Amino acid sequence: MKKVYIIGTGLIGGSFALALNALKLEVLIYGIDHNEAHLETALEMGIIHQKATLSDIQNADLVVLAIPVNTTLKLLPDVLNKVSLHTLVFDMGSTKSAICKAVENHPKRAQFLANHPIAGTEFSGPKAAHLGLFKNKTNIICDVEKTDKNLSQMAINIFEAMGMNIRYMDAEAHDKHIAYVSHLSHISSFMLGKTVINKEKNERNIFDMAGSGFESTVRLAKSSPDMWAPIFEQNKTNVIETLDEYIQNLKHFKSLMESNDFEGIRNEMKNTNHIKTILKGIS
Amino acid sequence: MKKVYIIGTGLIGGSFALALNALKLEVLIYGIDHNEAHLETALEMGIIHQKATLSDIQNADLVVLAIPVNTTLKLLPDVLNKVSLHTLVFDMGSTKSAICKAVENHPKRAQFLANHPIAGTEFSGPKAAHLGLFKNKTNIICDVEKTDKNLSQMAINIFEAMGMNIRYMDAEAHDKHIAYVSHLSHISSFMLGKTVINKEKNERNIFDMAGSGFESTVRLAKSSPDMWAPIFEQNKTNVIETLDEYIQNLKHFKSLMESNDFEGIRNEMKNTNHIKTILKGIS
Repeated sequence: MKKVYIIGTGLIGGSFALALNALKLEVLIYGIDHNEAHLETALEMGIIHQKATLSDIQNADLVVLAIPVNTTLKLLPDVLNKVSLHTLVFDMGSTKSAICKAVENHPKRAQFLANHPIAGTEFSGPKAAHLGLFKNKTNIICDVEKTDKNLSQMAINIFEAMGMNIRYMDAEAHDKHIAYVSHLSHISSFMLGKTVINKEKNERNIFDMAGSGFESTVRLAKSSPDMWAPIFEQNKTNVIETLDEYIQNLKHFKSLMESNDFEGIRNEMKNTNHIKTILKGIS
Repeated sequence: MKKVYIIGTGLIGGSFALALNALKLEVLIYGIDHNEAHLETALEMGIIHQKATLSDIQNADLVVLAIPVNTTLKLLPDVLNKVSLHTLVFDMGSTKSAICKAVENHPKRAQFLANHPIAGTEFSGPKAAHLGLFKNKTNIICDVEKTDKNLSQMAINIFEAMGMNIRYMDAEAHDKHIAYVSHLSHISSFMLGKTVINKEKNERNIFDMAGSGFESTVRLAKSSPDMWAPIFEQNKTNVIETLDEYIQNLKHFKSLMESNDFEGIRNEMKNTNHIKTILKGIS
């Protein structure tokens, strides 16, 4: 019976536990969470088999970190210190460079796999967990050559059994690209929500007039600040770069409007309609 | 047998025709469209019963304008000139002030109802039309007091039978609010798409790394430029105001990041999470 310790029993950790259970492997899943209520819920829902603490992980075959990236940064070296010499440790975080850097000289670096499943929803906590969250999603593994080959293969086997498509990338490239396709979307959504809320003090008007278009563009503004503030912090340079370009593009759009160049506005939109083709591959 | 003429047999006009058919009233639905292919498709799909031209509308009981707002602006006075003294004319456009102004002194002003159903998708053309597009959606009627009471009541009866919730507003207020909850969403989405496309010349990376979060925030960037350029033109002042505030909020977010104030970033997000409560009423 293999022992799996999942640190963080929220949306991501909980969904991973559910998917692991569904694989019908011989595993016992332990949950670790500083939020006792989450841990209780995860146990009651059958997401984890038993509660545990960090001092138990010396017995682990696999440790999964599914916590905010700032906590991973702090916890990971200590987790590697504690685990035995055969244990695989991987994380699920949305940033990779700082985390890889934090353990680059760790004697057990080869037991760690830097990992980012591109999956999630705007909800959080164990109640948001669901089987199938990872199915057909992309899982990005970073700096795979720094991990012991047998251990990385063990992880890959699990991810593929869960229906994930594996891509390989170095940590720097991951953080650069993900700033554009994920982090910037969250900021644009949060600031859109803020702009509308600030203006429409009378919520009745938002409520009545906002259609599904508004709803989809602000959906990400429901996301957890505790998860996202540390992501922006760790990917600061890349995120600021994307934000700069986004602001420049918005300013350009505004200047076209101010100079009544609506043919220019039409062209901006036509050129971006091309996103249709790109998105076809996503959903 | 009442005669209904629908000018513009695309997503909105087509969906309206389908909903009208489903009410099983004694109506004959004529389609008018400068796009002959759309008109043929609408006829083949049974969306309209017959093809017609503008010179036929003297026989109309009801004329519905479901075309881009710049074309409505040009066409509406002439449509009112042509119809008989008992005909109701309403539009479906996303802007209201300019359209109302264009006919404010028209002798048949009382036969026109300024109307905006908050419904649509990012797709266009008759093939995108579907029954149920308007069900449970808000329909905003502007300056209702300027329309003959019997005629506005006829329209309201139809909208309510289609399952729409009616709200009343003056045209200026409509344009101001809708700039925030709809027009700005489209710009934020188009510019997000542009920013990502420009950066990620290698589309493979977008394709692989973009999750459903990115997809929902850029969904509106698939929208029709021919429909949206005229909307931005007619609502220029309000849209520029919203865009200014949006850019200011993004700049503020960026400056918090630059000064490493991630507690401030967290608060920005926490305050905007409040959008959850507002959105609950929408979907």
